[in-house]
Amino acid sequence: MSHSVAFLGLGSMGLAMATNLLKAGHQLTVYNRTASKAEPLQKLGATVAHTPAEAVQGADFVFSMVTDDAALEEICTGAEGLLPALKPGAIHASCSTVAPATNRRLAEAHAQHGTHLIATPVFGKPDVAAAGNLWLASAGATAEAREKLRPLLDAVGQGTHDFGDDAGAANTVKLCGNFLLGAAIEAMAEAFTLAQKSGLERKQVYEFFTSTIFNTPIYKSYGKLIAERHYHPVGAAPAIIRKDLRLVLDESRAQVAPMPFANIIHDNLSTTVAKQEQVDWAGFAERAAENAGL
Amino acid sequence: MSHSVAFLGLGSMGLAMATNLLKAGHQLTVYNRTASKAEPLQKLGATVAHTPAEAVQGADFVFSMVTDDAALEEICTGAEGLLPALKPGAIHASCSTVAPATNRRLAEAHAQHGTHLIATPVFGKPDVAAAGNLWLASAGATAEAREKLRPLLDAVGQGTHDFGDDAGAANTVKLCGNFLLGAAIEAMAEAFTLAQKSGLERKQVYEFFTSTIFNTPIYKSYGKLIAERHYHPVGAAPAIIRKDLRLVLDESRAQVAPMPFANIIHDNLSTTVAKQEQVDWAGFAERAAENAGL
Amino acid sequence: MSHSVAFLGLGSMGLAMATNLLKAGHQLTVYNRTASKAEPLQKLGATVAHTPAEAVQGADFVFSMVTDDAALEEICTGAEGLLPALKPGAIHASCSTVAPATNRRLAEAHAQHGTHLIATPVFGKPDVAAAGNLWLASAGATAEAREKLRPLLDAVGQGTHDFGDDAGAANTVKLCGNFLLGAAIEAMAEAFTLAQKSGLERKQVYEFFTSTIFNTPIYKSYGKLIAERHYHPVGAAPAIIRKDLRLVLDESRAQVAPMPFANIIHDNLSTTVAKQEQVDWAGFAERAAENAGL
Amino acid sequence: MSHSVAFLGLGSMGLAMATNLLKAGHQLTVYNRTASKAEPLQKLGATVAHTPAEAVQGADFVFSMVTDDAALEEICTGAEGLLPALKPGAIHASCSTVAPATNRRLAEAHAQHGTHLIATPVFGKPDVAAAGNLWLASAGATAEAREKLRPLLDAVGQGTHDFGDDAGAANTVKLCGNFLLGAAIEAMAEAFTLAQKSGLERKQVYEFFTSTIFNTPIYKSYGKLIAERHYHPVGAAPAIIRKDLRLVLDESRAQVAPMPFANIIHDNLSTTVAKQEQVDWAGFAERAAENAGL
Repeated sequence: MSHSVAFLGLGSMGLAMATNLLKAGHQLTVYNRTASKAEPLQKLGATVAHTPAEAVQGADFVFSMVTDDAALEEICTGAEGLLPALKPGAIHASCSTVAPATNRRLAEAHAQHGTHLIATPVFGKPDVAAAGNLWLASAGATAEAREKLRPLLDAVGQGTHDFGDDAGAANTVKLCGNFLLGAAIEAMAEAFTLAQKSGLERKQVYEFFTSTIFNTPIYKSYGKLIAERHYHPVGAAPAIIRKDLRLVLDESRAQVAPMPFANIIHDNLSTTVAKQEQVDWAGFAERAAENAGL
Repeated sequence: MSHSVAFLGLGSMGLAMATNLLKAGHQLTVYNRTASKAEPLQKLGATVAHTPAEAVQGADFVFSMVTDDAALEEICTGAEGLLPALKPGAIHASCSTVAPATNRRLAEAHAQHGTHLIATPVFGKPDVAAAGNLWLASAGATAEAREKLRPLLDAVGQGTHDFGDDAGAANTVKLCGNFLLGAAIEAMAEAFTLAQKSGLERKQVYEFFTSTIFNTPIYKSYGKLIAERHYHPVGAAPAIIRKDLRLVLDESRAQVAPMPFANIIHDNLSTTVAKQEQVDWAGFAERAAENAGL
Repeated sequence: MSHSVAFLGLGSMGLAMATNLLKAGHQLTVYNRTASKAEPLQKLGATVAHTPAEAVQGADFVFSMVTDDAALEEICTGAEGLLPALKPGAIHASCSTVAPATNRRLAEAHAQHGTHLIATPVFGKPDVAAAGNLWLASAGATAEAREKLRPLLDAVGQGTHDFGDDAGAANTVKLCGNFLLGAAIEAMAEAFTLAQKSGLERKQVYEFFTSTIFNTPIYKSYGKLIAERHYHPVGAAPAIIRKDLRLVLDESRAQVAPMPFANIIHDNLSTTVAKQEQVDWAGFAERAAENAGL
Repeated sequence: MSHSVAFLGLGSMGLAMATNLLKAGHQLTVYNRTASKAEPLQKLGATVAHTPAEAVQGADFVFSMVTDDAALEEICTGAEGLLPALKPGAIHASCSTVAPATNRRLAEAHAQHGTHLIATPVFGKPDVAAAGNLWLASAGATAEAREKLRPLLDAVGQGTHDFGDDAGAANTVKLCGNFLLGAAIEAMAEAFTLAQKSGLERKQVYEFFTSTIFNTPIYKSYGKLIAERHYHPVGAAPAIIRKDLRLVLDESRAQVAPMPFANIIHDNLSTTVAKQEQVDWAGFAERAAENAGL
């Protein structure tokens, strides 16, 4: 069934997801701060709007995928924000990696307008998004609203796990996910560095583990970058994921739950940012090499 | 082809591996410090020896799987050690988790006796060993010797990766492996604790990740223990794997390659040992919970 | 020379400082959210006001010493805040431990009203404050304004160091100070625990170091608590100084300057808070003991 | 009262101490692996020996100050070691920074020869040693033997604290001391780096703290290096103190007492060694600067 859908935020993830919604037959209106990013979608039939408010006019569903909490607040409740323009009963799938509290607060604002915000963070890189193979978590609004949204989520991913009515819950899971990825990267960085300094080839150790006990796409794809010490192309910049780790640590503080691994990942990302390295975020793995004098 | 094989060290791992060698049709002589452990194998047709030297009389191949470096040195070069009794050309598959330098030193001693030590550490828990599904790394002696050993390794595992002539190399890989496992455990411990304190069910978060981006036996099996906070039965005691992490940190020092994650895993294992908790080694995951006041 | 001085915030530090200003001959008007705290000062001749605005009426100088950033903002720019009531040219000595950015922002607001905010964080415990032996750092407004304030600071401390016109600078120094204290505490906690587990008396080690190479009041006073594992009376609660360490880590993030020691101190304070221990903040030293099974 | 004294090990510390023993009127025989180091003492009247055994012939007291555990074992029980040559009742003041267990083992060996080993580690840099202002800890043998040794220790230091009959105890205290120094250095490194990135002068912050709450020679002398980021001249090389931190961590393991600060100091020293920086050991403070992109 075709719906009127608005998509706000056309970075590499948003673009891939919006394309899949379009391919699934939905009528798409898109908005991006830098308008030129919308051109590929326009060619595929999408309408281009100039403000969030304009984009969501008449939409049954809205997807947003923006950089951070401030950007999400801006497109929702800013000067030309979507919230006053959203029609009653419309559902907003909030896909950005933001603090759980941000989606909780905005969900409350949506509810007051008779609309629904459902937090739907996604798991996967842009190429995974392009293939429609993202995994999603969803939480917020009501079970009924989440059920209505599900067919659209199926157009962008291979499966969605439901985390209930607390709009913050799905983002807690998302933050756990980025933390677990970061931990896998740091662990491989330390292991491959030890192996290299012991006289082994990083690549050989990488191949052993990713064809045996860590035979999984995450370890394979990030491990390859670390084994080769080549962190290009840039999927997500270190500053972006450093922001995510900051959110992890903010939750860790708020919940009074110390996370020593998260401290280390965050600090290594910080050094990568401080050194202005133009690499994929997994490039923080170079800190282990560097600290060993490589 | 059936060979005369000696197996020294019948803990839960050794017992499972020896059983598979027996099932593969080899003539087995076994030795264990506590002789009663040999009974199940005796019933299956194995001969029981009273010293390492006696066990290896006439053997073409020897397997050893003992607790630590000291035990390995003892069965090789101790008072009733195997080395003087080993027939020329015999091959010793040294499976224990020991320091790379220990296997290097013993490989040199074997070479001086006209015999071969090949380091063949294994990856997998006792149940994996029982199913013949271990992964192995092999290194040391010559390519020819390693080729001769391979059919026997195929009887205990699902595949062996070759790491060349340096007898220390395979144990470096083994240490990397135990470190990577420990890192995955600590990462899940921190993530599940954060989720729980944020109001989520640990189990739900576990199920999400292990059915999506961390859908792999390692995360599933250890993650289940951490999600349920129930660390039984005891596969390997905290003190055993703490010893392995100590070896990791010894290599980290020797190679001048700092490993901050390894420090944290080691320290959490230490606290688990200091508190005399009778749990599987993954029980060090409780430190994250405890530090969050759970 | 006697001045009309307002003092806002009468916790144990504020009370001691206000008392010294009174003793120095100034006319004091005081304000505290919980009015009963003002009684001792009232008996000594202070006037009690019911709002910050009322307190600063006609004052040449204002001192504030409140719990955190939010409390400081409230007494300055809240509903009954002091800023609109402050007479032109009045000087506000902002003594609270807050984020550098908070004093910068409020200094700007004061400047717009034709008044001066000078950040004057203090170093020392309540008993040190009572003795008039605090050390102070000052920054913000103009050198001339800071010179005018100096005689009053001399009434509460034994010396003030000038850190220039940036109102944030003095609080950066204050945060460094609390971090350095926390580091000294953690270091002694680890050392005394190691010594105890090695068979030595904690007290004997404490006495050795504090009478030789660490013969200084900081190590003596905090070290005594750690040596005796008795963290009473409560000078500052763990939650209060955890807030300070959070400010340290916020600056560490903002300035992209990783601080691994600060992470550990913060996490140990968090665990102390999570366990709801009713101790002085130095009681986070128990984490080292506890992790060693003591 | 003048004694016949042997001094083994003439690095910068040993040379300063031996000189003070000579100045105090003792008859000195000296030994150093590199004989040329003995020349200054020879000019002052010392006899030069060619082996440890020769040096201790007829001596009432022996002092040793060598690089590490292996060197100490060599001069005691090596081929030309002192132990068989030591006359009954002679007292050996073992000053080197070694593992507690090493002095315990050698003390036992001395006792079997009817001689005494007293562990007497020293606290202070070479310039402090030259001024006779070292602090010492003593332990081992008997209270009577330690009393006999005391006048000689008074010739090299300003005071000695007694830690009883366990020869290992004094070295545990020494290791705690080097750890506490390292912690003070890392703490200042992080604080000054944060201050610098916040726009302050490192020097100004250094001067504030070392003239107020950290007004003590340790913070002043090491802090100056860190404030100026100039780690010359080299008092002790990073590799030397890294060895000491390794001993700290070895004790931490042996006693099952996790020391997270010690891990960080050790790792930063390791990176300094891996990068082959030719600086004083306090130069590991550069890691904080470097990780912040300075």
